[in-house]
Amino acid sequence: MIMDRLARVRERMRAHGLEQVIVTQPQSIYYLTGLWCNPMERLDALIITKERCRMLCYVLAVIEPEGCEVTVYADTGVTIDRLSDLLESGETGVDGDIPGRFLLPLMRRRPDVRLQISSCVEEARMIKTPGEIELLRHASAVTDDVFIRAFPQLRPGMNELEFGAVFSDLFLESGAGRIAGDPMVSFGPGTAEPHHDPGAYRIAHGDTAWVDIGKRIGGYHSDMTRCVFLGACSDEQRRVYETVLEANLAGIAAVKPGALLSDVHAAACRVIDRAGYGAYFPHRTSHGIGIDCHEAPFDVVGERLTLEEGMCFSVEPGVYLPGRFGVRIEDLVVVTAQGCSLLTHAPKELTIIG
Amino acid sequence: MIMDRLARVRERMRAHGLEQVIVTQPQSIYYLTGLWCNPMERLDALIITKERCRMLCYVLAVIEPEGCEVTVYADTGVTIDRLSDLLESGETGVDGDIPGRFLLPLMRRRPDVRLQISSCVEEARMIKTPGEIELLRHASAVTDDVFIRAFPQLRPGMNELEFGAVFSDLFLESGAGRIAGDPMVSFGPGTAEPHHDPGAYRIAHGDTAWVDIGKRIGGYHSDMTRCVFLGACSDEQRRVYETVLEANLAGIAAVKPGALLSDVHAAACRVIDRAGYGAYFPHRTSHGIGIDCHEAPFDVVGERLTLEEGMCFSVEPGVYLPGRFGVRIEDLVVVTAQGCSLLTHAPKELTIIG
Repeated sequence: MIMDRLARVRERMRAHGLEQVIVTQPQSIYYLTGLWCNPMERLDALIITKERCRMLCYVLAVIEPEGCEVTVYADTGVTIDRLSDLLESGETGVDGDIPGRFLLPLMRRRPDVRLQISSCVEEARMIKTPGEIELLRHASAVTDDVFIRAFPQLRPGMNELEFGAVFSDLFLESGAGRIAGDPMVSFGPGTAEPHHDPGAYRIAHGDTAWVDIGKRIGGYHSDMTRCVFLGACSDEQRRVYETVLEANLAGIAAVKPGALLSDVHAAACRVIDRAGYGAYFPHRTSHGIGIDCHEAPFDVVGERLTLEEGMCFSVEPGVYLPGRFGVRIEDLVVVTAQGCSLLTHAPKELTIIG
Repeated sequence: MIMDRLARVRERMRAHGLEQVIVTQPQSIYYLTGLWCNPMERLDALIITKERCRMLCYVLAVIEPEGCEVTVYADTGVTIDRLSDLLESGETGVDGDIPGRFLLPLMRRRPDVRLQISSCVEEARMIKTPGEIELLRHASAVTDDVFIRAFPQLRPGMNELEFGAVFSDLFLESGAGRIAGDPMVSFGPGTAEPHHDPGAYRIAHGDTAWVDIGKRIGGYHSDMTRCVFLGACSDEQRRVYETVLEANLAGIAAVKPGALLSDVHAAACRVIDRAGYGAYFPHRTSHGIGIDCHEAPFDVVGERLTLEEGMCFSVEPGVYLPGRFGVRIEDLVVVTAQGCSLLTHAPKELTIIG
């Protein structure tokens, strides 16, 4: 167990009046143990009380954190019985990722274990230590370098999957391993879809292109979006690009301790609204990042989340003109004592390739 | 909506006495609509009653199945309110994948919606149609071809990640796109770990090597493991290989309608026990496959699952000698009227490369 992190979780357990928490999310287990589990359709669980740590773990993927008693199970249908045996009575938090097929039978079997969804571990993870920020900086530095080397290789006629492979190969070359799945590469009309699924579209002169990639390196994630134009750039493409860049900078400028996460979104929106593209920015500006690519803090409409030193998140406004083209520019920031510091550094001035 | 599949789900709803089902698993939504959703930390849900289909969908990833009313939501915290608005009272099934953070608030808000975990859709998915079997055959044929072309490229000094890249490149070349993440390539001592995490280990003369890859192609998954030896093979490596191959063949021979899934495991175990390696086969023999790489039927100790025509699953016994080496051989089968038919065809006689 990583003792200072465990202490932070126990502090939050006290604050929330919880006797114990059940941690099932692999990223949270990694946060507290430094070890990865991969339960797939099974259940691995770390159980934390005020005094003890216990773990339920699938036999093929046993992880044995120091300071934690491990119970192993095989391919049997009685995982919930085993988990139940490890639980004490009383107010119990469980992370929101636990699948219903484990949660419902557990509630039925142990009504004395008063289960509630708890964000104890997510809250602890939200404030990064200097060591974690170093790891996030490293992941972003590798990603910066891959982007800087990949974009000049864009050629007319390349398709999205092929250009994705350029990024994937550069990550492999960097020692970080291949990217999971096909990188989100978007060309031409596809750039108007914020969550574009890359395919066989071949890029042509005058097309917009953006690439949005996140990769876990050394346990911590990067995530960055950069946008370029091939051969030429129309007045409107330029206007949209400059609007999104200004919104990205305005969002970053709004980040400081004591501000709200929604202030960052509001700052980006103000720029985009003023340029007349308000109807074409359909998503939030930020999501937290760390061991997971999307983690707390989340920018949820109607919620007030106050920024604190050590929080890390994305600033990624976009404008998407349906059927035509879109632009997104995404950076990662960490909240510092005075304001914020960027984790991503790849250039973002308007670039025409070729 | 794909009407014959919807009808099968409704049949099962009737059999289980359910007024409605909530489907949240993306693979199950794909099964019923032909469309992919990717909710990430959000919730997309398909609600099926006896008469209607409705869907709750995130604004950036709207899918609009024909014959289904779609309600769209943005980045707000009120998804559960929206879902609640779409539900009728009464006995309600929900798939076991629904995260606790949605399930618990829904139970609290709508006590009149009597929620239970339901496998209606999983049961429908378990019996494949001839069209689905064709897609599974195609995915396996592409995978066969990649394995056949990749193994001769294995060279002394290659590491696991590099050899994984050979497979990944061949999948890309085949038009199937890159593999998600690093393929499970295992060399030397790593072959003794059933769920090996590929890394920098460089293969040497006399080492065992196995590769376990599954890839979704045209919506349906392949999954295959093949094992070879580099340069030479000791008497013990040969004995283990021949035992595992015999167990694989015995498992396949046990597949027929009316048999139990546990009979397949028992047939494989019998061979491995007889050879004296019973203590070194720690996992189940089979998992179902289809739109998901691991889906029903699952081989769970103590459960009796009777095989029916149209079920597809893996047969993958293994022997793992800790710290030394291990062998796994995995094929996919489909249950036919008389017995079974193999989906995977890559050769599995003992092979020494180089």
